[in-house]
Amino acid sequence: MCSARTITLQRSLLARNQALAGDLRRRFGAASLPVVNLLASPGAGKTALLEALARQCGGDGLAVIVGDLATDLDARRLRLAGLTAVPVTTGQACHLDAAMVQRGLERLELAGLRLLLIENVGNLVCPAAFDLGESRRLVLLSVTEGEDKPLKYPALFHTADLVVISKSDLAEAAGFDAALARRHLQQVAPQAAVLSVSARTGEGLLALAVALGLKVDQRR
Amino acid sequence: MCSARTITLQRSLLARNQALAGDLRRRFGAASLPVVNLLASPGAGKTALLEALARQCGGDGLAVIVGDLATDLDARRLRLAGLTAVPVTTGQACHLDAAMVQRGLERLELAGLRLLLIENVGNLVCPAAFDLGESRRLVLLSVTEGEDKPLKYPALFHTADLVVISKSDLAEAAGFDAALARRHLQQVAPQAAVLSVSARTGEGLLALAVALGLKVDQRR
Repeated sequence: MCSARTITLQRSLLARNQALAGDLRRRFGAASLPVVNLLASPGAGKTALLEALARQCGGDGLAVIVGDLATDLDARRLRLAGLTAVPVTTGQACHLDAAMVQRGLERLELAGLRLLLIENVGNLVCPAAFDLGESRRLVLLSVTEGEDKPLKYPALFHTADLVVISKSDLAEAAGFDAALARRHLQQVAPQAAVLSVSARTGEGLLALAVALGLKVDQRR
Repeated sequence: MCSARTITLQRSLLARNQALAGDLRRRFGAASLPVVNLLASPGAGKTALLEALARQCGGDGLAVIVGDLATDLDARRLRLAGLTAVPVTTGQACHLDAAMVQRGLERLELAGLRLLLIENVGNLVCPAAFDLGESRRLVLLSVTEGEDKPLKYPALFHTADLVVISKSDLAEAAGFDAALARRHLQQVAPQAAVLSVSARTGEGLLALAVALGLKVDQRR
């Protein structure tokens, strides 16, 4: 199916995205704002993780641009958790791109933010190629997905700065082999730090908050 | 990002795919072979479901074309379960297309088959648009992904003939609300039959085998 014309067009799309992502990165840098691109399969627990992070650190100064094909369900959940949340509906598109993030930013005041999270469309393939101007990529791997996902979706895991093994409270029920998953991550994403987290029990949340550079309210 | 040129090219790609899928459908029809396009998120349990189906019905006459970006791990698992399995590695591509299925068929003898399954790339977005010449679409929704997925990925669920709620043995541990999920499916995919299945405990496997038109060996 792939013709020379398709490949040329794809390259041109990616080059345009890269240029715009560079603009965004300069803008985030000027605001001294760390930006995290949050990537995972559908249902790996991206939104639940952000809700738990707000419980751990407080939602003040945390904003999320939330990409979804349809609905603003996640943005509404995040607002209830005390976060500032801007939904971006992608329609047919299987990933966020820099232009969509730029549109999301029109509805967001960067001054006073301590962290901006971009919750990408649930997809382990397409978002890998699209730079959003982020400072870091956080990839979730839920224990219920199986240990083989890093091997089967290497391009995305290869770009991760941080991998969160999510839903750790379900590890035993799902028969998840954590050591095997970590070996696969070491093979595909040796550059990435790996944390095990449960949004439900709170396991690992403090470590995640620290890894994201958030000041943690120890009284919580 | 989407220019008129991109949209025209996308249409032309889809039109070419549709024509080729039509050829495949005629070929499958001439062989009186039912063909199922199996779609789901990464880690929703597609391969485990096929393994369980082979245990339920025997692997004789069941063949699988297995799409993955990388590795032939799933094809090896399926062969161990007694199925005929042909891996198709897509590289960067986020879905199977009819041309890839055609290439897989070069390594498969259709005579004597009772069912051909096409295990698509784990992705709830991109595969929706690509007809593979199948007679039916089977979409998996695992209980660990959450009840909202049909609302958030409507295009794919909208094309389902059959939805399997998979990993039903984990429903309680995951806090899955089956009634809510079924309401969402009714909203987005009212045309689809819905079955609850556990590859681990065997719940619902017999009903699935019957739904797929497989003769079931009751002694198993």
